Amino acid sequence: MRDTHLDKLRELSPLVHSLTNYVVMNNTANALLSIGASPVMAHAHPELQDMVKIASSVVVNIGTLDEYWLDSYLMAAQAANELNKPLVLDPVGVGATPYRNYACNQILKAANPTLIRGNASEIMALYNASSKTKGVDSTHSVEDAESAAEALASQYNCIVCVSGNVDLIVSSTKKAKVHNGHPLMSKITGMGCTATAICAAFLAISEDAFEATVSAMACMGVAGEIASDKSEGPGTFQVHFLDALYLISPQKLSEVAKITDGNR
Amino acid sequence: MRDTHLDKLRELSPLVHSLTNYVVMNNTANALLSIGASPVMAHAHPELQDMVKIASSVVVNIGTLDEYWLDSYLMAAQAANELNKPLVLDPVGVGATPYRNYACNQILKAANPTLIRGNASEIMALYNASSKTKGVDSTHSVEDAESAAEALASQYNCIVCVSGNVDLIVSSTKKAKVHNGHPLMSKITGMGCTATAICAAFLAISEDAFEATVSAMACMGVAGEIASDKSEGPGTFQVHFLDALYLISPQKLSEVAKITDGNR
Amino acid sequence: MRDTHLDKLRELSPLVHSLTNYVVMNNTANALLSIGASPVMAHAHPELQDMVKIASSVVVNIGTLDEYWLDSYLMAAQAANELNKPLVLDPVGVGATPYRNYACNQILKAANPTLIRGNASEIMALYNASSKTKGVDSTHSVEDAESAAEALASQYNCIVCVSGNVDLIVSSTKKAKVHNGHPLMSKITGMGCTATAICAAFLAISEDAFEATVSAMACMGVAGEIASDKSEGPGTFQVHFLDALYLISPQKLSEVAKITDGNR
Repeated sequence: MRDTHLDKLRELSPLVHSLTNYVVMNNTANALLSIGASPVMAHAHPELQDMVKIASSVVVNIGTLDEYWLDSYLMAAQAANELNKPLVLDPVGVGATPYRNYACNQILKAANPTLIRGNASEIMALYNASSKTKGVDSTHSVEDAESAAEALASQYNCIVCVSGNVDLIVSSTKKAKVHNGHPLMSKITGMGCTATAICAAFLAISEDAFEATVSAMACMGVAGEIASDKSEGPGTFQVHFLDALYLISPQKLSEVAKITDGNR
Repeated sequence: MRDTHLDKLRELSPLVHSLTNYVVMNNTANALLSIGASPVMAHAHPELQDMVKIASSVVVNIGTLDEYWLDSYLMAAQAANELNKPLVLDPVGVGATPYRNYACNQILKAANPTLIRGNASEIMALYNASSKTKGVDSTHSVEDAESAAEALASQYNCIVCVSGNVDLIVSSTKKAKVHNGHPLMSKITGMGCTATAICAAFLAISEDAFEATVSAMACMGVAGEIASDKSEGPGTFQVHFLDALYLISPQKLSEVAKITDGNR
Repeated sequence: MRDTHLDKLRELSPLVHSLTNYVVMNNTANALLSIGASPVMAHAHPELQDMVKIASSVVVNIGTLDEYWLDSYLMAAQAANELNKPLVLDPVGVGATPYRNYACNQILKAANPTLIRGNASEIMALYNASSKTKGVDSTHSVEDAESAAEALASQYNCIVCVSGNVDLIVSSTKKAKVHNGHPLMSKITGMGCTATAICAAFLAISEDAFEATVSAMACMGVAGEIASDKSEGPGTFQVHFLDALYLISPQKLSEVAKITDGNR
């Protein structure tokens, strides 16, 4: 049975500092509390250094970026690197506008992420944006994004997670897939942003960033399956999803997680 | 049986670009996903033009305006006009402060909305603000606002929707009323803002802005009725409302919608 | 049987103007609507004076502060004092960063709050920050914070409320404890921020700020108990909590509230 890190997460209750978008701040904070972590949201330039200092990990999610927030992302990302805190980048909507490509490039120039998590289109767009080519189709499967994910993982020496029907996690040497989850998860805003934050919580309590990300994504997927059994639609799903994150045991998670892995 | 446009909305899944307020961003995005549309929220000046370009319709909702966001509204509204995308204005709280009156006047000077949606007090205040008179009572019925709605529809050659116990939709030549809905809807923050976003989704897939707005408001009202049957209060209502938007069929919508209409 | 003020709140439906954080705006607005008050959220400098003018009470919650918002807090707090509107300060995360200490000191220099509400760590940190000592442990019990609460209440001649397993309310002469509530409340983001807003609603309709705060906290705790009976975890809890605020009767509140009080 694979170690899920979940006991340790609940014991340590890591403080996850999220610079995330306005749309999902509430969901994200509640998901972190439900799984057993502690959320903090702060973006003011005069306190970013100080807040990163007391955090266990840092999320930069560019969903509702603007000029002020972009500076916040850069400050937080650099501080995370300097202070050796795991840093997760969620490049929301990269590829949709040149400004989002610019923002991601600035962040990746300023700091090395521990993990980049996005959907297939975002991972492909991020790869294209960072290799200075352009043009991104809007819908892609996880399979389509596999080579982009591998290239990014090698380029930035980080973990890359592509979430979708199947979640793909790659490092510069390893690769795993998580086959859990439910289609209703795509009908709820910020489910990807929640995954990003949950990953940050697991990264905060593990030395092995690859395994931590696999556990986090399995946890998301299994919670989604549990919630879907009790739900009629996206409204009831959200409520039961938080309950599932709160109630799931490490043993149940190990038993139900469907993970395949190997070398790249 | 009236065409509800709902099949087409779900088939096309239009991208609704909402510049909306912090309070309701999450609800709005979830309601759009539940009904079958795709939400995007972006307000940064460097990307507004680009985001409007890929959107199917644009919402400007002034709920939590400030100086930066007011410029965003103006840029997005102008871009929507230039690119021929339907534009919906939700003048939240107009009449409450001179700054909100000023903001609405600036927006209406900069661009022509396809639809203005507000409650009775807001529509009356908007009419007064734009005709340079002043003074607005705080509570009004839809009937009170009827002449203001008609005047605005003629002045801006747009659709005006006044939501309340009964929803009134007027164009420069036509008028309809939707008699669906439930009192609990007034006990949930942002239900009007959600209506605005749902209208924008319907406007994106129809050539007939009047009929699209009628369908959208019927959809809101019928979903509210379905949700209220399963609810004990505003908490359970919200959850079942999203489920209802997700589950409702075009046929059910046609059957249950109570619409009366005629010429002005 | 203690007067709960709840009848009066529902009769008057006071307008609570909240300058609060992005994470909890939606919860806060919904909680205010559920209990029977009217929420408004506005932070733009050009309209703050005007909005405070029409409000019944004002909340300043520094959760996601930045330079612009800090100026908003100062303007709103001063306006509340000038216009004799009850002012509630929620010093979220004070002690976590020097900037939060600075912000709280600026606010307390600019205006006199009617009520300061925080958790034990925040009340202790606020006391330390305002007495220019430093160093704050992260977890404290309400008992630990009792002397800090009393000192702040005397220093600012205001009510201080420390929320936790037991809620402590102190004035410069009186002291009460509310023994209601449920552990799940600590697993939901912004439950403290909601308490702050509910306090502001009760302060708006009562001449007796001490009793109004006691009633508000009893209302929160009792609603939490009712919700917990129907909940499996933090997701279902949130939904039933809003229902409970909506459905609770003044009589039920009086009967179930567990309040102990006396002189300081």
